[in-house]
Order: sequence, then structure tokens, then C-alpha cells
Amino acid sequence: MAEVKTHALSALARRTADPAISWLMHAALARPQLISLAAGFTDNKSLPVGDVRVLLNDLLRSLRTGQSALQYGTTFGDPALRRLTAQRVQRLDGARGQPKAYSPERMIITSGSQQLLYMVTEALCDAGDIVLVEDPTYFVYLGILQSHGVRARGVRLERDGLDLTHLRAVLERLKRSGELQRVKLLYLVSYFQNPTGVTTCFTKKRALLALLNQFECPAGHPVYLLEDTAYRELRFAGEDVKTALAAKGFSERVILAGTYSKPFATGARVGFGFLPEPVFTAVTRIKGNHDFGTSNLLQLLLARALGSGRYDRHLQVVQARYAHKARVMRRALAAHFPEGVECWEPTGGLYFWARLPGRLPSGTASKLFQAALAHNVLYVPGELCYAHDSTRRKPNHEMRLSFGGATEANIREGIKRLGAVLREMMV
Amino acid sequence: MAEVKTHALSALARRTADPAISWLMHAALARPQLISLAAGFTDNKSLPVGDVRVLLNDLLRSLRTGQSALQYGTTFGDPALRRLTAQRVQRLDGARGQPKAYSPERMIITSGSQQLLYMVTEALCDAGDIVLVEDPTYFVYLGILQSHGVRARGVRLERDGLDLTHLRAVLERLKRSGELQRVKLLYLVSYFQNPTGVTTCFTKKRALLALLNQFECPAGHPVYLLEDTAYRELRFAGEDVKTALAAKGFSERVILAGTYSKPFATGARVGFGFLPEPVFTAVTRIKGNHDFGTSNLLQLLLARALGSGRYDRHLQVVQARYAHKARVMRRALAAHFPEGVECWEPTGGLYFWARLPGRLPSGTASKLFQAALAHNVLYVPGELCYAHDSTRRKPNHEMRLSFGGATEANIREGIKRLGAVLREMMV
Repeated sequence: MAEVKTHALSALARRTADPAISWLMHAALARPQLISLAAGFTDNKSLPVGDVRVLLNDLLRSLRTGQSALQYGTTFGDPALRRLTAQRVQRLDGARGQPKAYSPERMIITSGSQQLLYMVTEALCDAGDIVLVEDPTYFVYLGILQSHGVRARGVRLERDGLDLTHLRAVLERLKRSGELQRVKLLYLVSYFQNPTGVTTCFTKKRALLALLNQFECPAGHPVYLLEDTAYRELRFAGEDVKTALAAKGFSERVILAGTYSKPFATGARVGFGFLPEPVFTAVTRIKGNHDFGTSNLLQLLLARALGSGRYDRHLQVVQARYAHKARVMRRALAAHFPEGVECWEPTGGLYFWARLPGRLPSGTASKLFQAALAHNVLYVPGELCYAHDSTRRKPNHEMRLSFGGATEANIREGIKRLGAVLREMMV
Repeated sequence: MAEVKTHALSALARRTADPAISWLMHAALARPQLISLAAGFTDNKSLPVGDVRVLLNDLLRSLRTGQSALQYGTTFGDPALRRLTAQRVQRLDGARGQPKAYSPERMIITSGSQQLLYMVTEALCDAGDIVLVEDPTYFVYLGILQSHGVRARGVRLERDGLDLTHLRAVLERLKRSGELQRVKLLYLVSYFQNPTGVTTCFTKKRALLALLNQFECPAGHPVYLLEDTAYRELRFAGEDVKTALAAKGFSERVILAGTYSKPFATGARVGFGFLPEPVFTAVTRIKGNHDFGTSNLLQLLLARALGSGRYDRHLQVVQARYAHKARVMRRALAAHFPEGVECWEPTGGLYFWARLPGRLPSGTASKLFQAALAHNVLYVPGELCYAHDSTRRKPNHEMRLSFGGATEANIREGIKRLGAVLREMMV
């Protein structure tokens, strides 16, 4: 008889770790005086409470549209929302005609883009497979990979996106070690990346697709780019960049994830994806098993926000607001952080990225982190954003600083406290 | 070099079949004149459009509650909704005091109960594991099992619930074959079951928990009961039955799934679950990876519906409405179905179950199904609701008839058409 276990948990459940962020949230809850520059929350003041009220009121005023909002829909999502979203992404990319890459027919609506990331991983990856990620990358996605027993390999990040020379080197090394067949996709947070704020330029997107393509033959199957555009519409400076869907000849290898959680109604949790076949069909079936489809009420809300022009008007408010909060954080950093700390200033999104000198450790076990906590200020330690990748040492001297959720006063005070702690540690 | 594949899909994706129901939905869309007695939709007329409008208006009138509704929440869900839901289930079960089984601390809010079923399966089952199901059972759950490579074993169903003698025989057989260690849970749709309308009495719930318990030692790990109470509050005749949470001494083995999609706002897709440890922690972490948590806007809507008394008032409307529609279907069946067809009349829920004589095949490939389609009426063939289980022949002479989505006129006309087809086939 087999060993008696105290649980019946699956391999997936045993691999699924407590997310780092939940530890940070617990720390925050335990200290009401704490200023959190860690949470990835959006700005409360700029949430579209009035817009949503008007839109829902209109939607529920008529029995016909009201009943439709409160009934089941289809698994892939509301036709109007799919059409409006597809048109929007195409327009932002400046693409003309009716290119297949932007067809609403290859779009699925999801519970935030997070659910799309999860389902794409389910659809493409078996335990033991490999996903290439930016080094550092979005830590929740690392959690998804770990949960599925998928290995992450980090690719160096430069200020304008992935280091393509390193990407080629990583792929060559995997080819030599016979592991290339396990590589299923490259995950890229392409706009104002979480955690670094880096945006990948279009030239690099096109080049990395060409590079992945060269390795498909030895891999023995398609290798996808999963482009996560969560922060795209939170730009407050500089020019927009096209998505990888605009790279001619590669649209059958691009999976695009997007969301309305960041630019509009965070709590509505409506996201979307463009997927080529056979990934589209696989993900739609998986979505059917997850939940049949995202709440129709929320989908119709978003369709009306887009169709009425309220979304676009609100976006200007949001962008101006984050521009302001980023300025507040920049000034505070300039005033309070010691010299020798390198701060990456973003042109959109929610995050500054700070790199400490002399490899001063910033992880949860570090003196710095503990001192910050004692002074009631919280940041996301950079180490949480690096994959477990045995081919390099995990950096541990960085911090993600968010200006999304904190008030202006708390940004100023939080950076001041953190600056004082840093000055003390760096003496 | 390994075989070159044309895809990079995972084993899960390759196992995930097109859901039977999507085929039925396509059939319906292709024939606008079709009367569908197949869809599991709820009754459009009784959707709480007015209630939801008032509740959302109130919620979004104040900036404080409005911002909270449009912000991220916690992964396990809104505290008020968890508390109100836990209290409600406890009150319905007539349980006194503060029993741990009904603690809001072991509750998670999900995107419909469907998402809970999915995550529980992820948390407990590896490919090759076994789940016991009613024979027949909810076909979407069979799809989840197939997707995860989990084998389903059917347990005979009687008019008052599972056949316990057969359950024991199935467990004994699995023990003898050395497969008991692969058995993780028994899935039970306990109220007005989908597809048969059968309700499992409390005595059987307690007895089956005791029976599962006897097999834990040879299994080598806990064996759970996953009780799906989706239709509980759609009762329109007879007395309510307690959930398995009320079975003293077994609460650490009961996973309870519930939903507000059926009794209230279908399109809001808010469900819930009670889970014992370590399943609660595993599922919460998995939920964090899926989507961080269900839409706060929808959760606060449901909390207000419950707290304001609107939910309870609406429930009476819904119950009266389904009682009426069930009567309409019963009368139509009596008037139009030939003798020899055995119809199981429910006391709640959305479904009649009809068993044809002489094993007249009713499956999608059958003459009967094709003739019904030609006469523009659609039902769910019973065969779709049976697991692939090599230990018995799959029945193929039954049909699920739903009075949930169809109008009264369509129920009458649909049953009339189906009756005519049956009379012709049964001559």
C-alpha cells in the first residue's frame, strides 16, 4: 500500500506558492500607519465612478438591454465589445484595411488580462516546458509558471526593451542543451513594464519575432510571443508604440493580452486577448470550463464606455493624473534619495524602478526592507520579479516603487521615509 | 530531433474537447425558428433588472463605496458578501451557534460556481486520478474532468439521490483493482440535479460521507465530497434539504459550491464555495493566479442585494415563476407525449428528465434527434450527461428538457413538436 498522505492535493496545488504580493498585503494590513508604495492598485480618485453610474443606469433602464446584461452570454464574449476593442487596438496601431491580425473573430474577452495569461499558459505549457521572460518581469506571471511546473528563463532587459543579443544567446544555449523543444513562448510586458517601467520599441518586437521564428524549426513547433499590453493606455509622455500585431508576416505567432482594468474600471476586471489558431480555439474551450464567459453586465458596461466616448474622455483624466503623480514621485526621489541610487523614470504606467549601489540587498530578508517596514513604508523588492533561473545570479538590490495607489501626500512622505532609511544604510 | 509538430499545444489543451453545449448552441443559432428546450439559461422575464439598477445606483452614488467597487479587492472576496453568504447557508441549514463548517473564513467568492468546480479540480486532481460522479451528471463538469485527464466513474442515481449500495460496490471494485488511491472526490449536484431534477436527501448525504470515510485509509488520503448546490434556492415545492455541511463530524471533508447566477443576477456570475484546509489555501492561491479575485463591483452588488432584503423578495418572484413554467411543461407533456415515456417532474430547478421506452436512441446521431431538429425543436440528449466509464454501457434513450429559458408559448409549442416526433417514431 502506498504511503498515507495527510492531503489529497494535486501536483499543481503543491507547486502553487503563496504569492509574494499576499505577504506584502498582510504586512500592510497589520500596520495601519504603513504607506504602501508596493501595491499595484490604480488611483482611487480617478476611478470613473460617475461614468459607470450613468452607463449602468442607461443599460438597465430598458428591459431589453437590462435582461441581456443579466443573462448568460457566449464564452468568447459580447460581439460589440469585441468589435470595439479590436477596432481600438487596430486604430492605436495605425493599421489600415481589415488585417486578419486585428479581427474581432480572434478575440476573447476575459476576467482581466490575468485570466488570459493563465489560460494561454494552460493551453501551451506542460510541466517541464520553458517560457522566456524579461529579467525582471511581472511576478504574478512567474507564479503562474511555477504553479504549472513551467521553467522560466530570464532574458536581459535594456532601457528600450529586451536585449536581443542575449535572447539569441539564450536560445542557442537551449538548442545546444536539447531543451529548445520545451520552449513554448516568450512573455513580454511591452509598455511601461511591471516592474521596471521599460517600454519595448517596435523595432525590437519585430526583430524578436524574426529571431523566435528562426528557432521554430529546431524547436519542432511554433514559438509564440505573448505580448502583455496592460499599461499601454497609461502613457503620459512620448509617442505610442505599435503592438507586435503590426509586425507583418508574424501575426500567426502573436498572442496579445490587454485590459480595461488599468485605464478604466479596475474593479470591473474586463480584459481581452487576440489569439491565432489553434490557440484561440484551445483557450476558448478552456474558458468554457473556467466560467462559460465573463460577466455580461461588465462586458456591456465596457462596450458602452467605449461606444459613448466616455472611455476616451476618461483616459485623458487618468493620464493627466498619473503624469502628475509621477512628477510628485520624481521630485520626492530627487529631494530625498541619496546619490548613487539610479531611478528609472517612466513615461507611463504606475512604477519607478530604483537600483541601489554596491548591490545593497533590498529583499524581504534584508536589513533595508526591515528598516523600511519599521519606518512604516513598503516597496516591492526587486528580487521577487526575477525568475528562478540557474543560469544567472538573481539580482537583489532593486525596488519597485508604485505611484498608482498612494495619495500624493503619501508618495511624498513614503519616499521621504525610504530616503532616510537609505541614507542611513548607505553611510 | 523530435517529430515536428504543427502546434505547441499542451496535453491539457489537446484533451479539452469542444463542449457538447457549444454544438447545441451553434445548431440553435443556425435556425432562428428553433425552439430550444436545451439551453440552461435562466428565465429572462424574472431577471432582477430593476433591483440591480437601484442597487448599483446606490452603490455608485457615494464616492467612497463607488471607488471601492471599482478598485481591486482581495483574492478570496469581499468580507460583507462572505459573511452574508455564510450566514445565509447556515440559516437555510438550520444550524445554530457558530459551527466552523459555516465560517466565512473558509469561504471564497468566485466567478460563478463553475470557477470553483474548475479550481477544486485543479487543486485536487492530477491526470490519471478518479472522480466519482452521479450517472448521469452535469456535462460541463465532465468536460472539466476530461480536460485534466481525470477519469470519471459513474454511480447510479435513484429518485432520492445516489444509490449507496452501488457507491460501495464501485469503491470496493476500485480498492480491489488498486485504483482507490487515485480517487480524490465525489461530485454531487445535490438539488434538482442537472440533468435529472433529482434531489439527494440529507440521510444519503450523511451516509455517503460515512462511506467515503471508510475508504480513506486504503486510499491513503482524504476523499472529499464536492457538493454543488447551484439550484438549491430554485425550489418551488416540498421542503428544503440540509447541505452536507450539516453532517456532524464530516465538515473537514465537504467542499460546498453555490452560486447567485441561478436565483438572482445570472449575468453577474457570482458564485461561492466553502472549503476545508488545505483545499481552501490551495484554491485561494490558484484563484490569485487566475484573476486575483472576482469583480468587486459585482460582489458589492450581491452583498447589497442580500443585505437590503431585495434578494429574498426577488427569490419569491423567481420561485413562483419557475413553478408556473414547470406546470406549463408538465401539462404540455401530459397532453402531447405518448404513453411509455417516463417523465421525472422536479420540485425545483430548471429541468424535466424524460426516459424513452425500448431504449429508443436520443443521441445527437439518432433519428429522433435529427427529426426533432428538422421540426425545429432542440433538447439535450441524455448521453451527453454520462461519463465515459468502461464499467457500464452508456445509456442513450433519455432527454433533458429545460423550462428555464423558453417562454411559456415556446414550452407548449416545443413539447407539442417533440411529442409529434416521438409519436411518429414510437408507432
